Amino acid sequence: MPLEVNISRLMSRLETLSGFNAAPGRGITRFSYSPEDREARNYLEKLFSTMGLKVAVDGAGNMRARLEGSDPNAPAVLSGSHIDTVLHGGKYDGAVGTLGAIEAVRSILESGLPRRHPLEVAVFAEEEGSNFGSTLAGSKALTGKYSLGDLEKLRNPEGKSMADMLREGGYTPETLKDSLLRPKEVKAMVELHVEQSVVLESKGIPLGIVEAVAGIRALEIRLKGTPNHAGATPMTLRQDPLVTAGRLISHIEVLGRGSGTGSTTATVGKITCFPNVSNIIPGEVRFSVDIRDVDMGGMESVLRGISTAGPAFAGSAGLSFEMLLVSESDPVTLDRGIVSLMKECAEKRGLPAMAMNSGAVHDACMFAPLVPTGMIFIPSKGGRSHVPEEYSSPEDIEKGASLLADVLYELSK
Amino acid sequence: MPLEVNISRLMSRLETLSGFNAAPGRGITRFSYSPEDREARNYLEKLFSTMGLKVAVDGAGNMRARLEGSDPNAPAVLSGSHIDTVLHGGKYDGAVGTLGAIEAVRSILESGLPRRHPLEVAVFAEEEGSNFGSTLAGSKALTGKYSLGDLEKLRNPEGKSMADMLREGGYTPETLKDSLLRPKEVKAMVELHVEQSVVLESKGIPLGIVEAVAGIRALEIRLKGTPNHAGATPMTLRQDPLVTAGRLISHIEVLGRGSGTGSTTATVGKITCFPNVSNIIPGEVRFSVDIRDVDMGGMESVLRGISTAGPAFAGSAGLSFEMLLVSESDPVTLDRGIVSLMKECAEKRGLPAMAMNSGAVHDACMFAPLVPTGMIFIPSKGGRSHVPEEYSSPEDIEKGASLLADVLYELSK
Repeated sequence: MPLEVNISRLMSRLETLSGFNAAPGRGITRFSYSPEDREARNYLEKLFSTMGLKVAVDGAGNMRARLEGSDPNAPAVLSGSHIDTVLHGGKYDGAVGTLGAIEAVRSILESGLPRRHPLEVAVFAEEEGSNFGSTLAGSKALTGKYSLGDLEKLRNPEGKSMADMLREGGYTPETLKDSLLRPKEVKAMVELHVEQSVVLESKGIPLGIVEAVAGIRALEIRLKGTPNHAGATPMTLRQDPLVTAGRLISHIEVLGRGSGTGSTTATVGKITCFPNVSNIIPGEVRFSVDIRDVDMGGMESVLRGISTAGPAFAGSAGLSFEMLLVSESDPVTLDRGIVSLMKECAEKRGLPAMAMNSGAVHDACMFAPLVPTGMIFIPSKGGRSHVPEEYSSPEDIEKGASLLADVLYELSK
Repeated sequence: MPLEVNISRLMSRLETLSGFNAAPGRGITRFSYSPEDREARNYLEKLFSTMGLKVAVDGAGNMRARLEGSDPNAPAVLSGSHIDTVLHGGKYDGAVGTLGAIEAVRSILESGLPRRHPLEVAVFAEEEGSNFGSTLAGSKALTGKYSLGDLEKLRNPEGKSMADMLREGGYTPETLKDSLLRPKEVKAMVELHVEQSVVLESKGIPLGIVEAVAGIRALEIRLKGTPNHAGATPMTLRQDPLVTAGRLISHIEVLGRGSGTGSTTATVGKITCFPNVSNIIPGEVRFSVDIRDVDMGGMESVLRGISTAGPAFAGSAGLSFEMLLVSESDPVTLDRGIVSLMKECAEKRGLPAMAMNSGAVHDACMFAPLVPTGMIFIPSKGGRSHVPEEYSSPEDIEKGASLLADVLYELSK
């Protein structure tokens, strides 16, 4: 008898969770450690307690709800995601993975099937970085990437540290080191998440089995020229950084397409022009470059291309060129065993699934270097995410939660 | 005996005028109709009265100070500029032309030379558009381009109309129609101004004799695509408007250089990207295009080029393209007789001068269709203007005022 998730229960809980919202009518705004987050946590704690799971909360506010298996010494099978959102975000990002894990565990419990390993549902804090500008802060703290010292340093726009905000919320960041993830005690970590892009939708496939998560090189390019009167300065006497920025932005797209790996992305998402007045030749232009690939070679190829073209384009236009590395992370390969298991489970259920990469980083990535880790994606309508219009269909959420249930059960047998 | 301007007197007055400043330490901020503007006007009125000139102020706040010649029926020779500034602007823009005209007239008076025509110094109000966003508002009102109705419609950011601000300042905008410029009563208008660009500086020539003022076509281009996650959206599934904006901005520069007239400028000074976040593929990009030329053919060539390339680039990237005409003005040719007279006067004094065009529009342009009009430019250091660093040397100011004196005297003989 296959496991059966109850999609109406899951959707109704998604609706309830959406009600904990600081800005109703403009999507969902639920920052970690806010009053709405507290209400949402109380709600989840009740769900866990009804299901018989024991809840523990660590010094960074990560919740872990656990149900023992038949072997008290067996490592746990973990699943979960986050419930915090960006400002005016959507209903599905994070919430689907959190409530999907709860529903998957519930379906395993309701099946009455025997199970050796403990099951755990995790709710990670501050994934979006909405308070402190640093994404994955909760899972970074849990996996030892952030110490108490780091939480003292992270500040929100008002200057309050993450550690102080935790203390005010009734958490004890001092205990962080006592509840770090112990890899030996975790058999596997599996996260269900909305794709946040258009790959699954464009292929018409409801399930993505993530094989790797792209690494990131985030750059800022600065081009400096000479601001001047737009009408009074002949074309031959200009050092216009926006013209060269335009050339370079267009070239960066070509570099992304032509990296040779087929999986590189290269995106200029943010541009700032000074003084940004229609009748003044700009004096300075800064823009971001976001380069991602599951293959280091792809990122390196784009970086090399920018390092060559940038100074050359700038030099020929009489501009200065600066390139700053803002942040970097290396590609993460997810566990091959879990990927195979997911494929088998999807096939057994007759659910179409495709192997794919993730261009976005998720809580699961923090676990991948420590324990066998997997991710399941479901389609996002129009690829939209972090906006009120974010949407995934109940049918796809049901398929995602069902595959998650099967995989968690197989791992916990 | 040649006319002699007193450069130390002129520079000391420039210093005094700079003291009427709403934001000391951050350049000069003196908006028309402000308390600082009132103090500056009181100061100028005293200068005029000491010199024996009779001051009249019209309904838009333009001052005209007049000294009769020997023939009471002869038309007047007019010179002047403005004393208002942009926010945190410089000391020289407008002020050099206003105080230069006063000094030129003074040198004619001091010479004791006979003179048939009346001399007038004009101080135009609200040239920069700092209050109401509309440049040349004073000279437009004086030359009949703006009616009382227009002054009622122009609003500052707080919603106050230009007409109301005039009333509060003690002016009577209702009388505007009674003091319109009567072309028959003006023999010529000559304005001295800082160049605000780098042409004179780059040629090492202290005087520019303006032959024509460029016309302007101001556009806004809007490119719409699909915002999406920068990491999760493969390069092949994007509609990224910033990449196409980059291509188009770079192409517009090529169109400006290649228009065939040699005098075209094409500038993208302002760009806005939505949502402008480093890890989101932009959904929409808007940018300004400022096209200028003294030759209509040059502007038309660039416009045609954008109309062709814009939709083609956008179409091939799956974007929508929109092009709005924000404002337009046609090229203005200045009076050939005055241009010749200026060349002769400069040569007589042994001052190097070059014929040139103006890419910027000035008060004089409002007069050009009505009366014989000329302009003299002096170099701006580094081409900087509308900033605290704006600078023209006393030597160049002296040369400009001397040429102006010679020209005004020749015209008034």
